[in-house]
Amino acid sequence: MGSGNRIEAALEVALARAESRSGPPLLAQALRHAVFPGGQRIRPRLCLSVAMACGDDMPVVTDAAAAAIELLHCASLVHDDLPTFDNADTRRGKPTIHKAFNEPLAVLAGDALIVMAFQTLAKSVAAAPDRLAPLVEIYSEAVGAPNGICAGQAWESEPTIDLVEYQRAKTGALFAAATEAGAAAAGHPHQAWRVLGEALGEAYQIADDLRDVAADPEQLGKPVGQDATLGRPNAVQALGLKGAVGRLKRLVSAAVESIPECPGRAPLQAAILEETGHFLPKELAQQAA
Amino acid sequence: MGSGNRIEAALEVALARAESRSGPPLLAQALRHAVFPGGQRIRPRLCLSVAMACGDDMPVVTDAAAAAIELLHCASLVHDDLPTFDNADTRRGKPTIHKAFNEPLAVLAGDALIVMAFQTLAKSVAAAPDRLAPLVEIYSEAVGAPNGICAGQAWESEPTIDLVEYQRAKTGALFAAATEAGAAAAGHPHQAWRVLGEALGEAYQIADDLRDVAADPEQLGKPVGQDATLGRPNAVQALGLKGAVGRLKRLVSAAVESIPECPGRAPLQAAILEETGHFLPKELAQQAA
Repeated sequence: MGSGNRIEAALEVALARAESRSGPPLLAQALRHAVFPGGQRIRPRLCLSVAMACGDDMPVVTDAAAAAIELLHCASLVHDDLPTFDNADTRRGKPTIHKAFNEPLAVLAGDALIVMAFQTLAKSVAAAPDRLAPLVEIYSEAVGAPNGICAGQAWESEPTIDLVEYQRAKTGALFAAATEAGAAAAGHPHQAWRVLGEALGEAYQIADDLRDVAADPEQLGKPVGQDATLGRPNAVQALGLKGAVGRLKRLVSAAVESIPECPGRAPLQAAILEETGHFLPKELAQQAA
Repeated sequence: MGSGNRIEAALEVALARAESRSGPPLLAQALRHAVFPGGQRIRPRLCLSVAMACGDDMPVVTDAAAAAIELLHCASLVHDDLPTFDNADTRRGKPTIHKAFNEPLAVLAGDALIVMAFQTLAKSVAAAPDRLAPLVEIYSEAVGAPNGICAGQAWESEPTIDLVEYQRAKTGALFAAATEAGAAAAGHPHQAWRVLGEALGEAYQIADDLRDVAADPEQLGKPVGQDATLGRPNAVQALGLKGAVGRLKRLVSAAVESIPECPGRAPLQAAILEETGHFLPKELAQQAA
């Protein structure tokens, strides 16, 4: 099975657990709306690529780790889109949850997706109980306080914002968790994999800033110019278009070099170069070249 | 250490993990505001009482299980109080999080508390990795979809509400998790403990309905009459004041009888009778007697 299919199948298993005649139907629909169809599934694909480079000796655990990080990412998107944050009408080319359903269901769907991520991990590790605690710890640190994505978002409520911590928590944390969890799912020591995730997270953040400044909103599936509108920091503002693209390229090189020794190091390096090639929409990459 | 002190100490350990100079200070303050000082801590005390009746052979795991269920409960209160749900100004006699801080921080604090609950479990079970998966499963089922507290709240968005599922998910699920997790934390089979939690959950819901109809808002620390205002079901409306009190008493008897064989069955029965005696404020209990 291709890695994309493995991820979709693992997400389907997780979502199906939330669907029962005894549960409220609209919440189940909202959960499905939040997860399918996906975006690029960058984080779970990164997690899976690392696990495969480490031997992927327990594919059920790898699949759960990949699904869990995507569920956490989807949860963050649903809550970030709420009226009290970005007040976004569209996401991945569809109405956001609070627009398609209502605001209470958007809050609850985000909550339920966070819970589902940890449930997915717990359901998968019967055969390898020693791998559960590291995975839960990696993901809880990446999502919660003081340095996870919730903390990243919370910096926007501070009178003065620590830009380094803000970016690291808001985007870097989940990328670092993707690489660490991939290694942990395959039973490898995970801390050495953090550098790779952090570098890719920063590269992705710069790509996201570039898209926000210069992409076609229709192709992107969400509005552009949001950082300026909402007064959020943006790398293009700080470095200029060419400067930002240059930094992105240096981060990708550093990421590829940082990969720890493992059975599948060379194919992983190739996969990461391929993957980061899609960080920018084609036109934008050409425009910045 | 008394069980109350054990719970406060375990919560303090969990909260301290979220506090770091590198994290956003207001989120850390909001988390603390949401957890301290507590209400009656009924769910963690129930969890702890069951674990002690089962031998409490690994107190670190018991403490984590007790802290985790309170964190999940606090998360649900923070989100339930949001403008899009109850729009409550006060909780436990203090301003709610979105009033004391702001609405974004209330959403994020709830999210971070959910994450912290699972993190707390993972941090505690190094000595007993086999106990982590059951605990994560028990809590994720109790909080998520299709039958946990998120699902219970989501029933309020349905055009027709399944009252039995609504009450069971909104209140019963977390009580059932408290008793099951107490047993699981002590290494006992947990499913037999579900009946106790469900009966106590239903009893607590009736007590809550009674308080909403007849309590003194100042003593209660939150407004009364909310069910009528918000058009939510209330047992007093359905059964009358005496009828509701009678049902509450029958549920407590059934709960006490349901306790599975275990080393501390008799003291647990006594503890539960003592505990349920506090479900209603004194005046209301006398008024209904």
